[in-house]
Amino acid sequence: MGRSSTGRALRRLKPLDVEAVTIDGGFWGERQRINRQATIPIVYRRCRQTGRIDAFRLDWRPGRRRQPHIFWDSDVAKWVEAAALSLTTHPDRRLAGLVDRVVDLIVSAQQPDGYLNTHFTVVEPEKRWCNLRDQHELYCAGHLMEAAVAHFRATGSRRFLDAMARYADYIGSVLGRGRGKKRGYPGHEEIELALVKLSEATGANRFLRLAKYFVDERGRGPHYFDKEARARGDDPHDYRHRTHEVFQAHRPVREQSKVVGHAVRAFYLYSGMADVAALTGDTELLAACRRLWRDATERKMYITGGVGPSAHNEGFTRPYDLPNETAYAETCAAIALVFFAHRMLQIEADGKYADVMERALCNGVPSGVSLDGERFFYVNPLAVAAGATGAGARHQATSRQPWFGTACCPPNIARLIASLGQYVYSVGKAAVYVHLYVAGSGQAEIAGRKVLLTQQTNYPWDGCVHIRVGLDGPATFSLMLRVPGWCKSYTLLVNGKRVAGRSVKGYVRIRRRWQDGDRVELSLAMPVERMAAHPAVGADAGRAALQRGPVVYCLEQCDHDVDVHSIALPKQAKLHTRFDRELLGGTTVIEGEGSACAATGWKGRLYRPVGEGRARRVRIRAVPYCLWGNRKPGALAVWLPQA
Amino acid sequence: MGRSSTGRALRRLKPLDVEAVTIDGGFWGERQRINRQATIPIVYRRCRQTGRIDAFRLDWRPGRRRQPHIFWDSDVAKWVEAAALSLTTHPDRRLAGLVDRVVDLIVSAQQPDGYLNTHFTVVEPEKRWCNLRDQHELYCAGHLMEAAVAHFRATGSRRFLDAMARYADYIGSVLGRGRGKKRGYPGHEEIELALVKLSEATGANRFLRLAKYFVDERGRGPHYFDKEARARGDDPHDYRHRTHEVFQAHRPVREQSKVVGHAVRAFYLYSGMADVAALTGDTELLAACRRLWRDATERKMYITGGVGPSAHNEGFTRPYDLPNETAYAETCAAIALVFFAHRMLQIEADGKYADVMERALCNGVPSGVSLDGERFFYVNPLAVAAGATGAGARHQATSRQPWFGTACCPPNIARLIASLGQYVYSVGKAAVYVHLYVAGSGQAEIAGRKVLLTQQTNYPWDGCVHIRVGLDGPATFSLMLRVPGWCKSYTLLVNGKRVAGRSVKGYVRIRRRWQDGDRVELSLAMPVERMAAHPAVGADAGRAALQRGPVVYCLEQCDHDVDVHSIALPKQAKLHTRFDRELLGGTTVIEGEGSACAATGWKGRLYRPVGEGRARRVRIRAVPYCLWGNRKPGALAVWLPQA
Repeated sequence: MGRSSTGRALRRLKPLDVEAVTIDGGFWGERQRINRQATIPIVYRRCRQTGRIDAFRLDWRPGRRRQPHIFWDSDVAKWVEAAALSLTTHPDRRLAGLVDRVVDLIVSAQQPDGYLNTHFTVVEPEKRWCNLRDQHELYCAGHLMEAAVAHFRATGSRRFLDAMARYADYIGSVLGRGRGKKRGYPGHEEIELALVKLSEATGANRFLRLAKYFVDERGRGPHYFDKEARARGDDPHDYRHRTHEVFQAHRPVREQSKVVGHAVRAFYLYSGMADVAALTGDTELLAACRRLWRDATERKMYITGGVGPSAHNEGFTRPYDLPNETAYAETCAAIALVFFAHRMLQIEADGKYADVMERALCNGVPSGVSLDGERFFYVNPLAVAAGATGAGARHQATSRQPWFGTACCPPNIARLIASLGQYVYSVGKAAVYVHLYVAGSGQAEIAGRKVLLTQQTNYPWDGCVHIRVGLDGPATFSLMLRVPGWCKSYTLLVNGKRVAGRSVKGYVRIRRRWQDGDRVELSLAMPVERMAAHPAVGADAGRAALQRGPVVYCLEQCDHDVDVHSIALPKQAKLHTRFDRELLGGTTVIEGEGSACAATGWKGRLYRPVGEGRARRVRIRAVPYCLWGNRKPGALAVWLPQA
Repeated sequence: MGRSSTGRALRRLKPLDVEAVTIDGGFWGERQRINRQATIPIVYRRCRQTGRIDAFRLDWRPGRRRQPHIFWDSDVAKWVEAAALSLTTHPDRRLAGLVDRVVDLIVSAQQPDGYLNTHFTVVEPEKRWCNLRDQHELYCAGHLMEAAVAHFRATGSRRFLDAMARYADYIGSVLGRGRGKKRGYPGHEEIELALVKLSEATGANRFLRLAKYFVDERGRGPHYFDKEARARGDDPHDYRHRTHEVFQAHRPVREQSKVVGHAVRAFYLYSGMADVAALTGDTELLAACRRLWRDATERKMYITGGVGPSAHNEGFTRPYDLPNETAYAETCAAIALVFFAHRMLQIEADGKYADVMERALCNGVPSGVSLDGERFFYVNPLAVAAGATGAGARHQATSRQPWFGTACCPPNIARLIASLGQYVYSVGKAAVYVHLYVAGSGQAEIAGRKVLLTQQTNYPWDGCVHIRVGLDGPATFSLMLRVPGWCKSYTLLVNGKRVAGRSVKGYVRIRRRWQDGDRVELSLAMPVERMAAHPAVGADAGRAALQRGPVVYCLEQCDHDVDVHSIALPKQAKLHTRFDRELLGGTTVIEGEGSACAATGWKGRLYRPVGEGRARRVRIRAVPYCLWGNRKPGALAVWLPQA
């Protein structure tokens, strides 16, 4: 697409929107069905039960129960977004009616000046915009804007969208560089990427400019959060985290190279930065995104796509610090990584971004919700010890919970799953990209022709993908099929004949004059791999994780007689795969021989010389990590010692 | 000695006191020299500089600096105890004068009713005995009593001892079961074992009874800490730890079987319990001690003798939870474990207690102080990552510090090292026990004869021990020489002739009619062992630690070119030992071949299939864990993966 002054300078691809994509069955279709039938209704119910929805009535008074919390609005907004996205692909009159009523309620809470925040309207009206650092005001605003955009797309109604445009204009009148404005920005990023969406949905460039302001103001000196704290009469240094790194506000963003602080905030910010860079042609900002991407994915990411190892700051510590048992790896953080990856992918058209996106989408994101869609993980450890499931459990949950006080994750995973279609395809210059292999279809327009790609596949359970090209007339373009980073060999047939294709940054390109009904068959070799972590990851030293295709596996206690943490993986042992239709909703398991360290002879001893007692062979069964915790609670192991 | 009604029913051995034992050079002699020349003076200086000593002047007034903190008295008390113990074996007129002045100052702070606490005399006089749970009042009292006993033993002066007896009587008039008394006990145990010492030093049985009261009242319902909180107007549930387990007060102590809560508190309590059980012939209480011992040493102890894995409660979590990098393993907790082990050893005359005592004394205790005696570790991790030594370091210090705000560890290690003599020998029924092999001598009286045992040895650097038996006339008794649990074979000579001896609970017994000048030679085989941890210890799965004799080894970054966390220990590789006179004050190192995982081919990758790239051979050098952190700060590894 080349550079231009239209503001699209840096985005090489445009994703097919949710409305242009269908997902039919399979791994993701099933997840979407459960999301529609269980998760979205449950998130609504919890929002209602806890008072989050009624908060928009603005009838709370001091002394009453269910005082609107500073982040409640965002939970409802994410539910609206999830429901609207779902309605886009799966019309449902009851749900549509419910969404309309909730949207009416939200819009009714808007103040004459455009402001919309339940907490700061009824609980602390005098504190509006007094503490951007801690109070989630702009974070809630951002989620309301995202919800409004999704609602507009699903319904065509501008009511919510217009209200949020008014809110954004009001925010722009209070915050910014102009005279009399506060030069603030959010402690919890989110509004940046939301304003970009609002700008795209409304066509109003001023929202993009406001997003760019928030991106660029962050971390400048004199520090706004300090100034703001002093204005409140607080000591700027007297707050929990004692570092501006927690909000990525330790220096201007375009000078940043290290992924620091709260993980969700970090990746929401980086997503907003990538958006602003792409739409304004800002190569300096893009360079910062590239540096942060590398630091995140080459030094600070679990093999599951989880990010942010530490509970202390819900975020990052030092490079390669990836402890398994105490992994925080918040569900929302893996989702936020997907957002960032997706944006970088559109800018660079490089499969390495899709690799990470798929890693999170197949592992650390879906682990956040139970198979029945009704229970959630906030924290996603990669190891749970045998004794850690009871009273001795440390901070993280070792079984999924029906809800949380801080309930960001359940509605976030609901909207992510509902939005999955948008991650599958993109359109580039005379090219259609297939990033993810998902049964269903994508409808694009290219070279003036309507192209309907229809995928048949059991991916990720096997590597065979059949694609039918539907056209309203012959057309010449490139079909770009992703060859995942984990894949060492593949075969490619077009209409039954082997073709070579050309490898371009993680994609195989088939450029030809396509006819309606052309059939493409891609077979990705998908053996079980033993994966090693970089030598600097101390927690995984000497260990291996099982991965097949994009799916990371784990050992759960309920499949084993011996403590899974006493099982080592013999280097030579053969491992077989088997699709088990009955297990965990139907999944491929990996089975083979493990070596259990000698369990006898330990009476009265905690340590003894190596070699006393004999290791014994045990059968192991590994299941996808994303499906763990759906059976009897117990120990979990991803990284196994090697024997 | 058999059961009797004298109150000594359960103690089979009596340790030789510090005054009867000399330590001459070698591993421990050198530590004691440094303790005298550096640590004791430095602890005094820090106590003085921080206002801890002057606090006893009671001249602090509101608004002034250096407000006496609730635990300051204990730091000064431990310094007095360390100095007095040192004076016992190494007279020093200057130090003696200093001790006298500090003791005068302490005694001058005693109130007319016997009370002695700087904080509650000048800062919050109205709050005396209002918060036993959190305020360390009885803890400070206990340390003052221990100091007074040591001072009495060193100087013969009863001044401090009598003052503390008055204080104990006052405490007994306020707390206890009598009418009008509070039925309280300390949140931080310590006074229990101190009262037993006071009872032994004064001959007054009432102090033992008070100790027994504190032991037995703990954890009874209705819960004293809750009652006390309500009396203060506090919510009993509104405190940091939310569980009485942190003070081992969740149930009566004789019903306890699990080691829980704050580690130092736990082992101070168990030590007091063992004392009370031994001196009152309380077999039920002793049974609880045995259960707690097993839980501690078979499920909850690092290979270094460190205890208490979690920073959260400075203590215990679940069984087998022994993470290496985040190990808390407070120096004071390892010291407290030594106290408990020593007491159980006297009761049971079983070498298994001496094994644990020695494990802590050779590893997790001395690691707490630098080789020059001037810097300290509060926390003793078993792994430090390469990147963890800089700004990204987590809670624990990765280099020794000159002092701490909470400064329990430096004076505690000073008094432990000064008191080492008492751990070496015991006298039993017609028997002398040698628990530890330490160059020097022990003077006992047995069968009416004076027996002087003189040890020559380089232990723990080698396993050869020469013992000369000095007698003022022939005598028949058993010499009980400990055969450590780690030792698989030994030879024993008496006057150059091989003898078999009889093995009795971890000791080899030589019973004969001894003549003055008899020579005993014990050679303990001391090969390098690769140690494994119990299979339930997930953190050490598949890993080995190097141990030789009682000494646990580690790899420090400064001895290696590659990240020590990327080094595996080949199962077959030969390991050699070498005494290096120049290194770390003279120490045996273990050298050999390690396998460093392939460091190349990782560009742009955090994970890759096992087997890409070749492991390469590297020379490894392991040094004793207790000596780590005395050179260039860097990574540390105790448990190595096996290749």
